[in-house]
Amino acid sequence: MNIKEIIKKNNLSLLFQEGSFGIEKESQRVYKDGSIVTTPHPHKFGNRSYHPYIQTDFAESQLELITPPNNKIEDTYRWLSAIHEVVQRIIPEDEYIFPLSMPAGLPPEELIKVAQLDDLQDVAYREHLVKAYGKNKQMVSGIHYNFQLSPIFIEKLYQAQSNSQSFVEFQNNLYLKMATNFLRYQWILLYLLSATPTVEDKYFKDGSPLKKGDYVRSLRSSKYGYVNDPEIKVSFDSLQEYVETLEHWVNSGKLIAEKEFYSNVRLRGAKKVRDLLTTGIKYLEFRLFDLNPFEIYGISLNDAKFIHYFALLMIWMDKAENAIEVGQERLAQVAWEHPLDETAFRDEGEQILHQLLAMLEEINAPSELKDIVQQKLLAFADPRKTLCGRLVEEIEALGSYQKLGAHFAQKYKQQSLSRFYALSAFDNMELSTQALFFDAIKAGLNVELLDENDQFLSLKFNDHLEYVKNGNMTSHDSYISPLIMENKVVTKKVLQKAGFNVPQSIEFTSVDEAIRQYPLFENRAIVIKPKSTNYGLGITIFQQGVKNQEDFTQAVEIAFREDREIMVEDYLTGTEYRFFVLGDKTEAVLLRVPANVVGDGIHTVAELVNSKNSDPLRGDGSRTPLKKIALGEIEALQLKEQGLTFESILAKDQLVQLRANSNVSTGGDSIDMTDEMHPSYKELAVGIAKAMGAAVCGVDIIIPDLTKPATKELSSWGVIEANFNPMMMMHIFPYQGKSRRLTQNVLKMLFPELEINA
Amino acid sequence: MNIKEIIKKNNLSLLFQEGSFGIEKESQRVYKDGSIVTTPHPHKFGNRSYHPYIQTDFAESQLELITPPNNKIEDTYRWLSAIHEVVQRIIPEDEYIFPLSMPAGLPPEELIKVAQLDDLQDVAYREHLVKAYGKNKQMVSGIHYNFQLSPIFIEKLYQAQSNSQSFVEFQNNLYLKMATNFLRYQWILLYLLSATPTVEDKYFKDGSPLKKGDYVRSLRSSKYGYVNDPEIKVSFDSLQEYVETLEHWVNSGKLIAEKEFYSNVRLRGAKKVRDLLTTGIKYLEFRLFDLNPFEIYGISLNDAKFIHYFALLMIWMDKAENAIEVGQERLAQVAWEHPLDETAFRDEGEQILHQLLAMLEEINAPSELKDIVQQKLLAFADPRKTLCGRLVEEIEALGSYQKLGAHFAQKYKQQSLSRFYALSAFDNMELSTQALFFDAIKAGLNVELLDENDQFLSLKFNDHLEYVKNGNMTSHDSYISPLIMENKVVTKKVLQKAGFNVPQSIEFTSVDEAIRQYPLFENRAIVIKPKSTNYGLGITIFQQGVKNQEDFTQAVEIAFREDREIMVEDYLTGTEYRFFVLGDKTEAVLLRVPANVVGDGIHTVAELVNSKNSDPLRGDGSRTPLKKIALGEIEALQLKEQGLTFESILAKDQLVQLRANSNVSTGGDSIDMTDEMHPSYKELAVGIAKAMGAAVCGVDIIIPDLTKPATKELSSWGVIEANFNPMMMMHIFPYQGKSRRLTQNVLKMLFPELEINA
Repeated sequence: MNIKEIIKKNNLSLLFQEGSFGIEKESQRVYKDGSIVTTPHPHKFGNRSYHPYIQTDFAESQLELITPPNNKIEDTYRWLSAIHEVVQRIIPEDEYIFPLSMPAGLPPEELIKVAQLDDLQDVAYREHLVKAYGKNKQMVSGIHYNFQLSPIFIEKLYQAQSNSQSFVEFQNNLYLKMATNFLRYQWILLYLLSATPTVEDKYFKDGSPLKKGDYVRSLRSSKYGYVNDPEIKVSFDSLQEYVETLEHWVNSGKLIAEKEFYSNVRLRGAKKVRDLLTTGIKYLEFRLFDLNPFEIYGISLNDAKFIHYFALLMIWMDKAENAIEVGQERLAQVAWEHPLDETAFRDEGEQILHQLLAMLEEINAPSELKDIVQQKLLAFADPRKTLCGRLVEEIEALGSYQKLGAHFAQKYKQQSLSRFYALSAFDNMELSTQALFFDAIKAGLNVELLDENDQFLSLKFNDHLEYVKNGNMTSHDSYISPLIMENKVVTKKVLQKAGFNVPQSIEFTSVDEAIRQYPLFENRAIVIKPKSTNYGLGITIFQQGVKNQEDFTQAVEIAFREDREIMVEDYLTGTEYRFFVLGDKTEAVLLRVPANVVGDGIHTVAELVNSKNSDPLRGDGSRTPLKKIALGEIEALQLKEQGLTFESILAKDQLVQLRANSNVSTGGDSIDMTDEMHPSYKELAVGIAKAMGAAVCGVDIIIPDLTKPATKELSSWGVIEANFNPMMMMHIFPYQGKSRRLTQNVLKMLFPELEINA
Repeated sequence: MNIKEIIKKNNLSLLFQEGSFGIEKESQRVYKDGSIVTTPHPHKFGNRSYHPYIQTDFAESQLELITPPNNKIEDTYRWLSAIHEVVQRIIPEDEYIFPLSMPAGLPPEELIKVAQLDDLQDVAYREHLVKAYGKNKQMVSGIHYNFQLSPIFIEKLYQAQSNSQSFVEFQNNLYLKMATNFLRYQWILLYLLSATPTVEDKYFKDGSPLKKGDYVRSLRSSKYGYVNDPEIKVSFDSLQEYVETLEHWVNSGKLIAEKEFYSNVRLRGAKKVRDLLTTGIKYLEFRLFDLNPFEIYGISLNDAKFIHYFALLMIWMDKAENAIEVGQERLAQVAWEHPLDETAFRDEGEQILHQLLAMLEEINAPSELKDIVQQKLLAFADPRKTLCGRLVEEIEALGSYQKLGAHFAQKYKQQSLSRFYALSAFDNMELSTQALFFDAIKAGLNVELLDENDQFLSLKFNDHLEYVKNGNMTSHDSYISPLIMENKVVTKKVLQKAGFNVPQSIEFTSVDEAIRQYPLFENRAIVIKPKSTNYGLGITIFQQGVKNQEDFTQAVEIAFREDREIMVEDYLTGTEYRFFVLGDKTEAVLLRVPANVVGDGIHTVAELVNSKNSDPLRGDGSRTPLKKIALGEIEALQLKEQGLTFESILAKDQLVQLRANSNVSTGGDSIDMTDEMHPSYKELAVGIAKAMGAAVCGVDIIIPDLTKPATKELSSWGVIEANFNPMMMMHIFPYQGKSRRLTQNVLKMLFPELEINA
């Protein structure tokens, strides 16, 4: 079978480039100086017995971050980013993630604690590794790259060839070819991407093999790294032979388990290798890669793409002879070369990359891939352009690899904390959905992004599946409740029926009809507003009572510009608070204050605004929890009414409002008042949500005095509105007061059976 | 206290005219000839122990229809209409509603069955009435008019006057004044609105007091009607006296119960009159009115308005002297006048109506009221203009009052059946909501129309409250399910996850991106469509597989005109059926067929279309279940492709489609297939609805052969779409096949505890 020809003839080039990608990344938690921590795996990450994203590898200190598989490598990379940001923000303040594969500042062996997993067999396995390899060697970290070809591609390929083997055999052989050739040419990836040139002396049981100031390309892939006894040889000639030779080593006791076989390629698809014979090989795991300290997530996106096409080349090209032996030899040799020396196999390396370029051409791959490969070619001519070459130069400049590690560890942590309210790679989604996604990753729920533009996620724990939209719309709400809340008139009738205070109102469908009823409103404090718009448009408030029919008529006409139906509603005096109700509890109470600045006797209004706007919470209001205060017409007008301009210097402690409305979306401040609010109002809000059948609900209540209990008299309080899509971000990241992590409450509501640690 | 002055000075004229109105109407069920039926109260109306709208009065044959109170008399009238339409369509085909107060075709007394109510005391009371008055007299029917002044009006009036009485006393006295003056001047209403000039001889125990061909104004208000022994006198001077005198007659055994006091005004507000002393009088019940046979609902809207303002006049004017006695005398005298004679009290009548006109002027009442009163004034000059005058002339013309009654009974029934799918007075709402409303009235649920424009109802049975929008959106659906269904991509992912067959698809956000992937689609049967539009816009189908990139590109560009995101989806061959799922069951299956006609060898296409369009089910498609087939450009084009025009004469049985699409909204036919569909598909549809958490759901499934079971292979069937607002009307009133009363299923789902009889 000539794969190239079949792909070309059958128009399969596109499908050939499709696949599924997963990344696993180990790394040590360290202190500021880069030395490994002795603290346990943070309990905030929940339970490791099921956590899909955040695990420990060998030791308690050794994080293993796992992305789910994605059909686009870019998405896998976004997941890697998200998981990192969760981890960076959740580990203790004085802990960091070490960006290098070789451990630094190793604690005395007795302080290295193997991962305390629930499954005692897992712990026993680790204890065996300690005996076989020593603890230090087990502290080495790396990246595993899982790759699956598109099943549709394999199917089409199978249909297009004429061999008589079964589909599963065909697929197995395809993956075996990829695995074999990979093992043969993996030294090329090592040359380009290795990053373990040195380690501290105490890492070695019997003294360092490296002279002071000496470096190699990859300690991790050398005999001092995480490798099996050279005696362990496993055949990749056929799946049958693979299974039998591997089982032989386990049965003979040379390996305690199949997973102790540290090949740089693992055949995946079943828990036990023998099962592969029936299930077939589903994908490959490439385990060669050192952490790249220059990359915040340990690997660059370009390198991830490069590895993908390198793997494709491994089936595009013919199957190499003597692949395993030759490959292993070359890998060992290249690993022990000096990073700044030319490699002994430069010719073969360049030749393979040229083959890769040719393949890219033939399958019409995206042009960026060609650029990436060209860059890699240059590194053969100049070893300083290899990752390890760069690294050695930087280590020399800083004095030690630990210092370099510590430097980047701090930098990356700071970077991950800068926009602490967002998940950078998913910033296309709303902040509330990002927060929920964050909490779900942390708690170990299986998340699937069903539609990012629509803020639609699915969450799964064991067999329990839930869908969430906009961070708070779930199966716990009844459909009728948002429909009630969408309609102000119905909302009122429902709340009134249930015995809650709502301002009295009358609806009108024509100006004349409203004017005819004017006598009913004379001297009453009223609000005239369109029935359905939400953004404050067309609203007139007669706080002191409407005095004459002309004013009334004008207000009615203004309201009718916005809607075909208007409401004339009693005006309630008091302060409006937003209650966030979830189930049986008011989880948060917020006061919204119009955009404002406070003087210091020195700065102008404009300067005070700019200073207030520099808060990282403030931005455009959609990618940030708060919005920058504008210096526009409306603000100028508002100042003018107070006899001020943007250039006025305010007296110390003088508070000036730049807006009449209190919306956060116009630069208003959000102030958490949950603890200050009288409990009677919190109960009221829960009752209001229940009356509408809502599990999650934002209730706006006008309250004369938040410290005094709610009484039944109509004048003392009133419900203004209920909102089925309340902005959780206002409560999670308020301008002042305590943060209320409401997204976590949503998860607890959806998954009461799950351990969620605050 | 001068009420007029207070109203004027305090701007209360508008509030004075507000109030609450309820109508109760008795009438006999009769056969075609007007003779009273001997069948029991139809069990389809559910249980009389709680039914709020459809009760029996004295006998099983005597319906009592009760509207809920409304703040607008127009709304009360609409309810009266709706309840009538329900009754007309539910009573047996050979039964009618008799439009006159006096019974006709009375069965032998032993066949008149008193209402078989659950409460044995109620039955016992009726047996007592039989003894006291005989059965025939109890068969007389009438209209009771309940009226309450606006409580806010009474409050403002109370605040504006200086009397030292309590609010409840003040309110009692106001209603007592209205009651007293009403009793004094009720003869005027009798003169204008009475309609019981005669009755058959056997009605009278001791022979008719009327000579043959003789008439009176009101038998019902005469001593031969439903009146107490003249000895029974109850004082209206104060509430205390009222209570004491009424209790006296009950205690003395002259009345078996308080309700046996047949005053034309009843004080309402408590079950027992003594309780009125604490609760106060809440409203009045006027019981004077005969059924108006010229009106489909027994009373005209104008007369109902007239009665309202007449009642207002009763408090606007001064309290009359000797009101009860004088009133009773005049009533009896006028009742026994000949309907075509001038009344003895014409002067007083005209004077009171002039006072009414003056009041209308002073309170600035709507001008139509003045017109109504002017009309009534004319009737004093010409007795033929009274209702009874007209009636006598018509009876003479037809030969007997029973014939007249039978004539109108048949006419009104026919009228109520003509648009059997709608509730005429609520035709502003969607047909599905009208159908649900119909079923709720029938079953005896308390319905409140929260927002008619928004199709929002509340339904209540005992303490169990439910809200319904659009006839099928309820608390039983989880909020997340419509959100899932709204998004085609999410719908697919959810269904695929749950193991259902969905056509494979890929989404694109740019033309270039789609074109790049063209090789994936070449020669595949696909549908290219915008991601979110729903009306068939921008969709291209390559049923035979897409053959070249140009066609593909064009289709992609067309789809992008409708949305920023498009889908390329596998095309499934087979027929599309709509499954209506409710809870655990597929309640209906529908096939939609494109607009079509079938030839007869004689008529042209245009003629066949017109003939098909004359079906009462066809109309504009919103106020009718089906839509008329258009004769427009698209239809002409479709014919042209078949070599036809609108003028072509089709061969016998030749079926011609006028549309390519099968939507009912473009004149398509709906054909019920519930019984024909293989049960395996019905189960599938239930599973699909469940996977999305929907209680009510329309599922569109493509099926190759509806008689063969669904199998798991992808090619055999596929889910196209799920709809959370499925058009129930298609199933309730299909073009062909059995009607499926889905609104009744919705009610059963919401109120499993309620007796709902099909």
